[in-house]
Amino acid sequence: MTTIRTQVAIIGGGPSGLLLSQLLNRAGIDTVVLERATRDHVLQRIRAGVLESGTVELLREAGVAARLDVEGIAHDGFLLSDDDHLIRIDIHALTGRQVTVYGQTEVTRDLYEAQEAQGTTILHEVSDVVIGDLDQDRSVVDFTHQGLRKRLDCAYVAGCDGFHGVSRRTIPEDRRHAFERVYPFGWLGILAQMPPIADELVYANSQHGFALASMRNDNLVRCYVQVPQADRVEDWSDDRFWAEFLRRIPSQLARTLAPHPSVEKSIAPLRSFVSEPLRWGNLFLVGDSAHIVPPTGAKGLNLAASDVFYLHQALIAALQGRGMAGIDDYSERALARIWKAMRFSWQMTTMLHRFEGEDAFAARMRRATLDHLAQSETARRDLAENYVGLPY
Amino acid sequence: MTTIRTQVAIIGGGPSGLLLSQLLNRAGIDTVVLERATRDHVLQRIRAGVLESGTVELLREAGVAARLDVEGIAHDGFLLSDDDHLIRIDIHALTGRQVTVYGQTEVTRDLYEAQEAQGTTILHEVSDVVIGDLDQDRSVVDFTHQGLRKRLDCAYVAGCDGFHGVSRRTIPEDRRHAFERVYPFGWLGILAQMPPIADELVYANSQHGFALASMRNDNLVRCYVQVPQADRVEDWSDDRFWAEFLRRIPSQLARTLAPHPSVEKSIAPLRSFVSEPLRWGNLFLVGDSAHIVPPTGAKGLNLAASDVFYLHQALIAALQGRGMAGIDDYSERALARIWKAMRFSWQMTTMLHRFEGEDAFAARMRRATLDHLAQSETARRDLAENYVGLPY
Repeated sequence: MTTIRTQVAIIGGGPSGLLLSQLLNRAGIDTVVLERATRDHVLQRIRAGVLESGTVELLREAGVAARLDVEGIAHDGFLLSDDDHLIRIDIHALTGRQVTVYGQTEVTRDLYEAQEAQGTTILHEVSDVVIGDLDQDRSVVDFTHQGLRKRLDCAYVAGCDGFHGVSRRTIPEDRRHAFERVYPFGWLGILAQMPPIADELVYANSQHGFALASMRNDNLVRCYVQVPQADRVEDWSDDRFWAEFLRRIPSQLARTLAPHPSVEKSIAPLRSFVSEPLRWGNLFLVGDSAHIVPPTGAKGLNLAASDVFYLHQALIAALQGRGMAGIDDYSERALARIWKAMRFSWQMTTMLHRFEGEDAFAARMRRATLDHLAQSETARRDLAENYVGLPY
Repeated sequence: MTTIRTQVAIIGGGPSGLLLSQLLNRAGIDTVVLERATRDHVLQRIRAGVLESGTVELLREAGVAARLDVEGIAHDGFLLSDDDHLIRIDIHALTGRQVTVYGQTEVTRDLYEAQEAQGTTILHEVSDVVIGDLDQDRSVVDFTHQGLRKRLDCAYVAGCDGFHGVSRRTIPEDRRHAFERVYPFGWLGILAQMPPIADELVYANSQHGFALASMRNDNLVRCYVQVPQADRVEDWSDDRFWAEFLRRIPSQLARTLAPHPSVEKSIAPLRSFVSEPLRWGNLFLVGDSAHIVPPTGAKGLNLAASDVFYLHQALIAALQGRGMAGIDDYSERALARIWKAMRFSWQMTTMLHRFEGEDAFAARMRRATLDHLAQSETARRDLAENYVGLPY
């Protein structure tokens, strides 16, 4: 069997795996990345678009922020709406920081280019991954690539392979605890080539349900509406999407909006999920492999980045002989921040979505929460601090 | 029929009715108070014990705060606990204000003494109240007192007669909207003559459910445990109460606690309820007659006081010929504050109680909310601002 020796085997070539690899490589640590899909497939995935200031810092530290620093759009705030009532969350005034609008697709592309320039081994269309010897000095990752069974021989394994990946399942079922909340709705999202609906993101609560007006750049918008869980993309023509979107966003914004055809359309379920622990011997779970947030609040990619932050420090220290404290603390440190982002995402989701079968009291609690935000600077600051990202 | 002519008929001789009467009397407005129960019964009701700073101000304005200012205990903060983890909410440092511990029983007694000194007519053991002519220039309140049918002829009627009173039901059913949430548990509360468990109130979340360690004065404590909705006082001996209480409060507090026998014991259900509107012609609903909060956060009496604040200003202006704006705005102004206190009380209740049948995710959201409070001064400030009372 072909055996490749490396220091850190990284399962998953999405943004979290590549960012970890990039940060480790820059510290002189050797990595191999295994990815199930083709390079093109990975680069076409459309995901989140809002980066916390800490995520931007980490991308800079990884040396992959040159294009981000030019093309990323710094946002000082965002808007919440309750029917026609707009509430601005002035992130910059409230926290001194900003978020950056820059699509995950772009982050992934920048990471690929940097990793390829560095000559990192990234194997695509890898299947049948089996992770073993996690309690030994050296661990192994067996996999099939180009028809051949191969092996990575490594000190550590980073599980960056997402919710459906093998990494989490490598931890014995009776040794991990799952916490889950499946929301009774999904987000129907479209991409369309047109100018943004507003200068900032608009998270809209309305009697017809939630909508989000977002953007990727000056001529590309990303818009969503809350839809029933059972709905399919085929149920939603562009006309139907825009009609529904327009009646959910504040009328002062809807009035000036000229809908454009979608260039992409998809439905994503909403789920809160955490699996504990994040470490199993030499295996470390990162990002979606261990936790999923609903997209309300844009924490998914940012939370993967904070896992990478803790883990790259821990691995560098361990592999440079500077101690195992980071390794031993990784699960606890990462989970402390994860649970706070879970709470924030759950709260944002509850505050902004209509839940089928809910009573009138629940709807009034949503309105009262938004009214409290409108009137209390302290409440807005708490929201802004969470949105821009709690400290690592 | 005996007819008594007055300016404002006040239905209900609890603290909200008496406070309104007292404030009106001091402005030279004549009132008559009708109360269903005996004076002794009203004075023995045991209810809330924490006054917002605005409530204290209003009691001072009413001239009934002399004893409160001597015997009331100013508290700079309170404690939240998550098992053994204590979080202090330093109200004074965070908001510049304080709350005052002073039992509702004492507030009621002070109000009775002031009202009696003033010579206000307070009729007890009144029954079969019927409110009428609310759309006329003068309205009427018919009632039975000492075996005789009598009538109040008045300009306005204040409905301060609680959740079960007649005032709310006088508004036609198809013209009022009820919003309700019944929580699947109650609070078992005891009074005991012993020193306080801690210097400040302790709101305890634990794996066994909620407990509250409160006090009335230096030698009288009021303690609660969350119990299943179906439990009865007879199910709970003092020994059983204290055993349950002790395992819910932080062990560092439980260690030094020497339980004393209870001098009172009762179970109260937890409910959130709002009926809209608060005005129907010449009738104005105040306090529990229109809204109930769960006791978590101690908003019940304070919310009745803020209703009284808005209403006494409105009635004085109207009866002194200074305009009807306050009358016309009463329902909207009072409801705006009510809904925010409803939200706060619902949030405190959700954050601190174990819900039967809840999943592990819900329990973790409670813990994450408490962890966020422990770590974020902004989150603590938001809680403190709500606890000490939002502005009128």
